[in-house]
Amino acid sequence: MKLSEIASLLNCEIIADHDVDICRVAGIEDAGPGDLTFVSNRKYVRHISQTRASAVILGFDMPDAPIASLRTKNPYLAFAQALELFFTPVPPPSGIHPTAVVAQDVQLGPNPSIGAYAVVGSGCVLGAAVVLYPHVVVYPGVVIGDGCVLHAHTVVRELCHLGDRVTLQNGVVVGSDGFGFAPREDGSYLKISQTGRVLVEDDVEIGANTTIDRAAVGDTIIRKGAKLDNLVQIGHGAQVGENSVLAAQVGLAGSTRLGRNVKVGGQVGFAGHLEVGDGAIITAQSGTSHDVDAKAIVSGSPAMDNSIWLRTMAVLPKLPDLYRKIRELEKQVASLKKAIGRGEC
Amino acid sequence: MKLSEIASLLNCEIIADHDVDICRVAGIEDAGPGDLTFVSNRKYVRHISQTRASAVILGFDMPDAPIASLRTKNPYLAFAQALELFFTPVPPPSGIHPTAVVAQDVQLGPNPSIGAYAVVGSGCVLGAAVVLYPHVVVYPGVVIGDGCVLHAHTVVRELCHLGDRVTLQNGVVVGSDGFGFAPREDGSYLKISQTGRVLVEDDVEIGANTTIDRAAVGDTIIRKGAKLDNLVQIGHGAQVGENSVLAAQVGLAGSTRLGRNVKVGGQVGFAGHLEVGDGAIITAQSGTSHDVDAKAIVSGSPAMDNSIWLRTMAVLPKLPDLYRKIRELEKQVASLKKAIGRGEC
Amino acid sequence: MKLSEIASLLNCEIIADHDVDICRVAGIEDAGPGDLTFVSNRKYVRHISQTRASAVILGFDMPDAPIASLRTKNPYLAFAQALELFFTPVPPPSGIHPTAVVAQDVQLGPNPSIGAYAVVGSGCVLGAAVVLYPHVVVYPGVVIGDGCVLHAHTVVRELCHLGDRVTLQNGVVVGSDGFGFAPREDGSYLKISQTGRVLVEDDVEIGANTTIDRAAVGDTIIRKGAKLDNLVQIGHGAQVGENSVLAAQVGLAGSTRLGRNVKVGGQVGFAGHLEVGDGAIITAQSGTSHDVDAKAIVSGSPAMDNSIWLRTMAVLPKLPDLYRKIRELEKQVASLKKAIGRGEC
Repeated sequence: MKLSEIASLLNCEIIADHDVDICRVAGIEDAGPGDLTFVSNRKYVRHISQTRASAVILGFDMPDAPIASLRTKNPYLAFAQALELFFTPVPPPSGIHPTAVVAQDVQLGPNPSIGAYAVVGSGCVLGAAVVLYPHVVVYPGVVIGDGCVLHAHTVVRELCHLGDRVTLQNGVVVGSDGFGFAPREDGSYLKISQTGRVLVEDDVEIGANTTIDRAAVGDTIIRKGAKLDNLVQIGHGAQVGENSVLAAQVGLAGSTRLGRNVKVGGQVGFAGHLEVGDGAIITAQSGTSHDVDAKAIVSGSPAMDNSIWLRTMAVLPKLPDLYRKIRELEKQVASLKKAIGRGEC
Repeated sequence: MKLSEIASLLNCEIIADHDVDICRVAGIEDAGPGDLTFVSNRKYVRHISQTRASAVILGFDMPDAPIASLRTKNPYLAFAQALELFFTPVPPPSGIHPTAVVAQDVQLGPNPSIGAYAVVGSGCVLGAAVVLYPHVVVYPGVVIGDGCVLHAHTVVRELCHLGDRVTLQNGVVVGSDGFGFAPREDGSYLKISQTGRVLVEDDVEIGANTTIDRAAVGDTIIRKGAKLDNLVQIGHGAQVGENSVLAAQVGLAGSTRLGRNVKVGGQVGFAGHLEVGDGAIITAQSGTSHDVDAKAIVSGSPAMDNSIWLRTMAVLPKLPDLYRKIRELEKQVASLKKAIGRGEC
Repeated sequence: MKLSEIASLLNCEIIADHDVDICRVAGIEDAGPGDLTFVSNRKYVRHISQTRASAVILGFDMPDAPIASLRTKNPYLAFAQALELFFTPVPPPSGIHPTAVVAQDVQLGPNPSIGAYAVVGSGCVLGAAVVLYPHVVVYPGVVIGDGCVLHAHTVVRELCHLGDRVTLQNGVVVGSDGFGFAPREDGSYLKISQTGRVLVEDDVEIGANTTIDRAAVGDTIIRKGAKLDNLVQIGHGAQVGENSVLAAQVGLAGSTRLGRNVKVGGQVGFAGHLEVGDGAIITAQSGTSHDVDAKAIVSGSPAMDNSIWLRTMAVLPKLPDLYRKIRELEKQVASLKKAIGRGEC
């Protein structure tokens, strides 16, 4: 494909050779002749001058490139779109595999794609063009919207709902029982029936082996467009707001609610019953047992304002030194006191 | 159901309208007419005056409610019991599905419930009324007690034992090989055969995608009544004591032993070969490479006494300020010294 | 088996009774008559004098034992080899189970072992003596080397490669889509097709429910001999170096590269696009957003040099005390100033 053609499909400004032929999209370090590459992370700018790629997608704020370039406000988005032009995905299972066990009363939309050994329970409703890879298990009474893709070994538990275009990577569990146990006087626990549902709205993607629990009462909700990475834990009755993004291994305890467009770094932990405002950013490995204001940036465990945290962490390794200095000061002040007391000055 | 009837079944004191009809149990924010709700967390007390519920379960120490109320010492337990009165669970698979692959020599107790594509290996012994949801895989030589429920995609590896009434949420792995490798001189590793078993005692519940490893020698043991949340890691040869509770994403390294009634917050990490005493509490995101005394409350990474940790964390964000103050003090002390040296006073 | 025979097979020096009969290998606390045990961890030395074992494997630097002993430079390695002498593993599935769904064009090596309900997609190539336990799902176009063992409920996604003798514990996901989404101006995200592969080289073992993502472009690579524990997250385009060892619940964000023989403790987090040098050690629960030098030992979140961290953490609980002392010093210095100002000395 000519670079000029790509430029026009991607709505980019083209600089230098319009006629260069592109046959692949590749990372800047691996790219060779015929490849289109991209730089969106400042860390990789130094590679621009050495790349063997034939062309590069760059932001308007990036330095000049020695090769043909496509300029755009959002180079990462343009890269994503360029990738699509050259990518032929491995097709999903076609039709309904004879070994799939689909209950007789299931309502199937048009063009279902159900792989070997998938199991769909009684009373389920599946939308159009739903893809269930082999070994997906859908418990009874589940509703799955149009265009959902459930990868092998995902489970959707009884009565849960997936909206349209929801993607579950492998091993995702939607609707496992929440961690609800009432303590008895003898120290043992009574299991509390988890009667709520998990509702996953449209355009959500959930990463491999992530688990989303149902609650004793009320629904656990993942709102429209939210993206959850791998091995994330969503506790019973929690909510993740629209277009919020949770990196891998994040944990939300029960009943905590994240607002819209919240960004959560890897391995962050939230205590239960918290409110996190719209647009808040919680950086990696932080932990909080307090609410987080809208648009706040917080860090650390326990979490504090990010700018205070940065300054605090810069000083932290000096703590042994500070300790020594304080002891030294104490001695000096004591000897000054003595000197003054003796009228030595 | 009349509220008075519920009060008598739950052994609660009833205040105000005995005859109100209850048809559901719901959370305080979602509840409407006909609903029984509850408050056990102080954070939700403010909702009592606004709830649209018809009745509320409260502790004796809670304020007056504008609606009928059931008073009890343990409102969370009463809520759990009330929920049971109105909840009709989705029934598990009935009988043995024709696609289940159960080895010929398996000993099955009465009333088995084995779902589609479940696999039970040679030499297994299953108790009465065991429920295996679709796609459960039980390796050879496993013993499963009465009334166990194994959800879809759980695995129990060879020779492991589950006691009675054990519940495994989806994706649980019991008995995967421990992380045991002996370093060779060239930097590579020799895998050590993991010949031990995992023993899970009665009334244990294990959360979705949690993994419990077997050891090279000796058993990994989860004692009676313990509750493990999702995505927990139990290393080879570790032990979790009776009625201990582990929140999500906790990690126990090999050979560490938790006592009885230990409470572990989310994302806590334990190094290997530790002893944690009965009734200890380890708060969320803590990490320890030391033993923990019985009934101790510890926090932080590395963990320290919780009360010290609370005071330390309160001061931590002031560290940049302390740093500045110490430099200032150093200057002042130096100039005082000079002044005294010069006899200026 | 005579102890002398074991000594010669394991290349150990034998001390005391050559003729003692050994019938099992056991842990030092559980061992009884007829058992061979071992001590490699200094923590367990105190058990040597009390063990009921018939013989013990010890390093040359360990104290005398009251029982027969085998002395060696690497007692853990010798223990691993001894274990092998007495261990009869439960055999894997034999042959190809009639319910396995293997696409017609799959190239199978000699002596395949494919369990019930395993699914192998079109175009896959399997080496000699590959073991697929029940419910393994291999997507189309996957290459699996000789002697690989894939436990029940593992998934290998389209086009990924496993080298020879790779072991996947249960629930492992190899090749799930990387967490790649390009932000649109309205706050929503465009999914980026993840067109790269995951390459797992020879002699790698991956722990239960660990997830390894594929990238948008380029490969995610786990090099020869690396060992990953349970619930580990490997982000898109990351690399784990030869013979590196990652403990449970570690997270590597996208494009981060670990060198050879790196050791990573449990629950460590790495930000994206980092380089970690050969032989580096990152202790448990650390987190870093910076590169780590070869052979460095780092700790804490954010990570710092381990020796500084140790000293810092020793002082940390004294912080409230330091705070008090600084306030006290400020008062004293102020009053000294005053005293000097008044000429009181």
